[in-house]
Amino acid sequence: MAAYIPPIDDITFLLGEVFDFDALMVALPGCEEVNTGLAASILEEGGKFCAEVLEPLNRPGDEEGCRLEKGAVTTPKGFADAYRAFVAAGWAGLSGAPEFGGQGLPRVLQILLDEMLSSTNLSFGLFTGLTRGAVEAIAHHGSDQLKQKYLPRMISGEWTGAMALTESSAGTDLGLLTSRAEPLGDGSFALKGTKIFISSGDHDFGGNVIHLVLARLPNAPTGVKGISLFLSPKFLVNQNGSLGERNGMSVGSLEHKMGIHAQPTCVMNYDGAIGWLVGEPDRGLNAMFTMMNAERLFVGVQGLGIGEAANQKAVAYARERLQGRSTDGARGPVPIIEHPDVRKMLLTGRSFADAGRALGVWTAMQMDIAALHPDEGERNKAAGFVALLTPVVKAAFTDFGFETAVLSQQVFGGHGYIREWGMEQYVRDARITQIYEGTNGVQAMDLVGRKLPMEDGDLPRRFFAMMRAELFAAGGPAELDTAKAAVGEALARLAKLTEHLLAIGEDPSEGGSSASDYLCFFALVTFGWLWVRMAGKAAASAHATAELKQRKLILAQFFAARLLPRTLGLEAAIRSGASAIMALDADIL
Amino acid sequence: MAAYIPPIDDITFLLGEVFDFDALMVALPGCEEVNTGLAASILEEGGKFCAEVLEPLNRPGDEEGCRLEKGAVTTPKGFADAYRAFVAAGWAGLSGAPEFGGQGLPRVLQILLDEMLSSTNLSFGLFTGLTRGAVEAIAHHGSDQLKQKYLPRMISGEWTGAMALTESSAGTDLGLLTSRAEPLGDGSFALKGTKIFISSGDHDFGGNVIHLVLARLPNAPTGVKGISLFLSPKFLVNQNGSLGERNGMSVGSLEHKMGIHAQPTCVMNYDGAIGWLVGEPDRGLNAMFTMMNAERLFVGVQGLGIGEAANQKAVAYARERLQGRSTDGARGPVPIIEHPDVRKMLLTGRSFADAGRALGVWTAMQMDIAALHPDEGERNKAAGFVALLTPVVKAAFTDFGFETAVLSQQVFGGHGYIREWGMEQYVRDARITQIYEGTNGVQAMDLVGRKLPMEDGDLPRRFFAMMRAELFAAGGPAELDTAKAAVGEALARLAKLTEHLLAIGEDPSEGGSSASDYLCFFALVTFGWLWVRMAGKAAASAHATAELKQRKLILAQFFAARLLPRTLGLEAAIRSGASAIMALDADIL
Repeated sequence: MAAYIPPIDDITFLLGEVFDFDALMVALPGCEEVNTGLAASILEEGGKFCAEVLEPLNRPGDEEGCRLEKGAVTTPKGFADAYRAFVAAGWAGLSGAPEFGGQGLPRVLQILLDEMLSSTNLSFGLFTGLTRGAVEAIAHHGSDQLKQKYLPRMISGEWTGAMALTESSAGTDLGLLTSRAEPLGDGSFALKGTKIFISSGDHDFGGNVIHLVLARLPNAPTGVKGISLFLSPKFLVNQNGSLGERNGMSVGSLEHKMGIHAQPTCVMNYDGAIGWLVGEPDRGLNAMFTMMNAERLFVGVQGLGIGEAANQKAVAYARERLQGRSTDGARGPVPIIEHPDVRKMLLTGRSFADAGRALGVWTAMQMDIAALHPDEGERNKAAGFVALLTPVVKAAFTDFGFETAVLSQQVFGGHGYIREWGMEQYVRDARITQIYEGTNGVQAMDLVGRKLPMEDGDLPRRFFAMMRAELFAAGGPAELDTAKAAVGEALARLAKLTEHLLAIGEDPSEGGSSASDYLCFFALVTFGWLWVRMAGKAAASAHATAELKQRKLILAQFFAARLLPRTLGLEAAIRSGASAIMALDADIL
Repeated sequence: MAAYIPPIDDITFLLGEVFDFDALMVALPGCEEVNTGLAASILEEGGKFCAEVLEPLNRPGDEEGCRLEKGAVTTPKGFADAYRAFVAAGWAGLSGAPEFGGQGLPRVLQILLDEMLSSTNLSFGLFTGLTRGAVEAIAHHGSDQLKQKYLPRMISGEWTGAMALTESSAGTDLGLLTSRAEPLGDGSFALKGTKIFISSGDHDFGGNVIHLVLARLPNAPTGVKGISLFLSPKFLVNQNGSLGERNGMSVGSLEHKMGIHAQPTCVMNYDGAIGWLVGEPDRGLNAMFTMMNAERLFVGVQGLGIGEAANQKAVAYARERLQGRSTDGARGPVPIIEHPDVRKMLLTGRSFADAGRALGVWTAMQMDIAALHPDEGERNKAAGFVALLTPVVKAAFTDFGFETAVLSQQVFGGHGYIREWGMEQYVRDARITQIYEGTNGVQAMDLVGRKLPMEDGDLPRRFFAMMRAELFAAGGPAELDTAKAAVGEALARLAKLTEHLLAIGEDPSEGGSSASDYLCFFALVTFGWLWVRMAGKAAASAHATAELKQRKLILAQFFAARLLPRTLGLEAAIRSGASAIMALDADIL
């Protein structure tokens, strides 16, 4: 297998030429020193770590998996050392708050590092991604005492985080959860209950594992309005910061999964584990959502990262594998990259990955603006875009990432089905990203049911207007006109369809029936906008190589001609309405 | 997990009311005694075997896998006993030629049994499916001596078959294979070479394993025109039919695969294994294609079977799993089958499975006509349809089956990712069906490059005319009009697009770029035709229950409204032409 190549050139192009990252950084207090050159050199180092340390552990980690012996989790050979090296090099704290020892670098860098982690070792990347999610929730909702005690060592990565939400009867519907929290009178609580699917619930990296646990206080209201969030560490922490005795929690078992075998997904038993409230009583879901939004973007980027890696391997294989004759019949055997159907699979994956990275960067820039911009109007506008795009990034990146993994495996023919080649692992690992952190169906409902109606529908309108204005701004090479027109036409249809959905918003059957198709439509148009932008910027660039110009131009044309048309079918399906979906009695379905 | 329910009711409906199976049987010499009632009672027994014996072995077989110890393959616990019971009950010879001891039942029954085998245990079903493929090749191309010696015990299932085609550098492109066959002077040959991906290459069921091996004779022309086919048994067979000494072949290793773990996929070493020519020298590919066409239909049905089973489990789970509130917000938690997005996933899988079964039956009827009808014109017409539909059944059934497996897994949320639930195994097992027996890309090339141009394009035209005539025949309930019109419109677009592809047929880049999208378009229209047919026949039926009438009507509406529109995007993509796919230099892709 070809080694993973960190996409530093594409990152440099995106930051330096597509998005004017440097100008944004100058405008954000605390980021003035950051620029494309610095970002590229940091990410080059990060990419090296991913390629040299993490990727070699990916296949062996999948084969070996995690073990639970006498209550202790053992991760696959090499993982603990790699994690400690990752922390020692400072990667865990890249975007962490400086007041707690983080490096305070922008989200843009974080999301690009996350992509490379996901490309090379999804199981490993989860440890650090979940820790950042937990940090987010504590930073926004925790008391000063909790923050001081836990954040510095979580941000450094010395301690990791875990999210303990799901119970066997409470998955998407957290309102059904039954774990309890009993006040101990000293401000702490005793947590009791069993949680399942707890990623990074335990490990052998040393340090501590900080669980954020959803549970009910005595006499809490039923449903989602009676859930509170608690911080509960694996080891109680002494006043001087040293680790004290083991808290009352244990790993009941490790889940046997389709993939991410190197990730210890735990069934956790809380048997009177001591915990402290994070945020207000009964408002735990609120605090958890802070964490989950960050996690959703992270999971989207996981899908992106797997797609990127799988496509890289497939391209390399297709260049070397000789089968069949050239299309004119004159030469053979030829590299299979010459066969149109193989090219189509490769171009599909590539056009998803490049546009996904662009949208990831754009969204992360909005997050940086929302967090740091001096102007409140700018902050709010950006926060709106982040809210709108969070479900799109989560669901579309993971759906496209899975599709890319499957297509890339297909390029390998029979070899793709053989474990040693590593392609089937991408498919198995990618599959979880469509499921966890809210299934992609839930993301679609979030987009249609909650996000579109924000600002009375002006939020999506604002986003569409921005894309439209940019799409039809002057310039760009003539070869791009057809693609540009196709994206513009699809955008116009998307805008109209959005008004249609907003108008029938009162009927949740309509929204639910259309949501996943709509989300895909939305994502395809957004990718199309970014393809036109990338190809246009490449054509106009003084720095871009001729190869990059050709690559971006043809991929933009390919995307507009071959993938954007999917919106036609999605639109027709949505417009057919909910009746055919809702009509059949459940007992004869 | 809910137990698998053999689809006997749907089979009875299809045979008895949708396709007028009984009238066909009367017209086919040797099948006069066969009718819907007999078929249903045979398949009910077969379904019972699948549900009671094979399904319970499916998950354990996946976990245990096969082992190779001291050159001997051990299949998972229970498989050898199940196989012997399968043979003892006569299932292996269901459609085998009576002159060699088979029961001579029509293909229609075979394909329906194959579906149930595939629903309950894909790994197991492969043993018997491959044996039938080998029987086919020997029956059509083998000498009388070979037939007498091998067919009776292969048809009974006492001996199994294996296809030894692929080598590590010769997959799709068999012309590159290097295995050699040296004449031994007595009419036999010594085979030398290494083959990979050999399903059922060895096992512990007892009996013999009959390998059909592609190899080159001395001084054979290079490429596909220098390949011969040989029969080579694991144990040489004495004159009296008893098993003699071990032939010169051995299992080099077992492949480590993504799925079908209970199937011993072998690397086979032929070290002077004695073999006999099947068919003429250098014409082995020809003989192999006889086998491969039967296998391609079988593999299509594998995809269908997995989709059927996965959908059944997902429906059962969705009825019981309580999460979230009803769409009007009034009740909760409700069974998730009430949620529109979940319903959409379930209906998608169901509409693929029912229409797939219908097309499988229709195609098998054409095979029966082609093999047995007294009228040569009828035989040829039917053989044309089989040729046309073989790649469609193989690729579309497996693509839709995989999609159904993924959607069904998705319905289970996080539980779908956990091995114990069994849903992820469907996804892993289904994945191979898109790859082996010619990747789905190869099938699409076969459809566009070889099948469409048959009879100067009249073959597809004839098929479309048949669908059109039937679609617009009088009758059918008014509620079906919209669906009928939608299918008619898509069929008209398909016919025009086909003419477009026939016209540009000289440019293989165009065909190759469009092939997989075109095949999907073709399949969707064909499924739509069958949905209208099924719903119409159900509405007009005197026997069908009100439930069946409702089910078929609404599924037809669902298919036409929600899935058929995919053809819009496929068409636009195809019409955009090959340029965006072929333009990019391979080294910068």
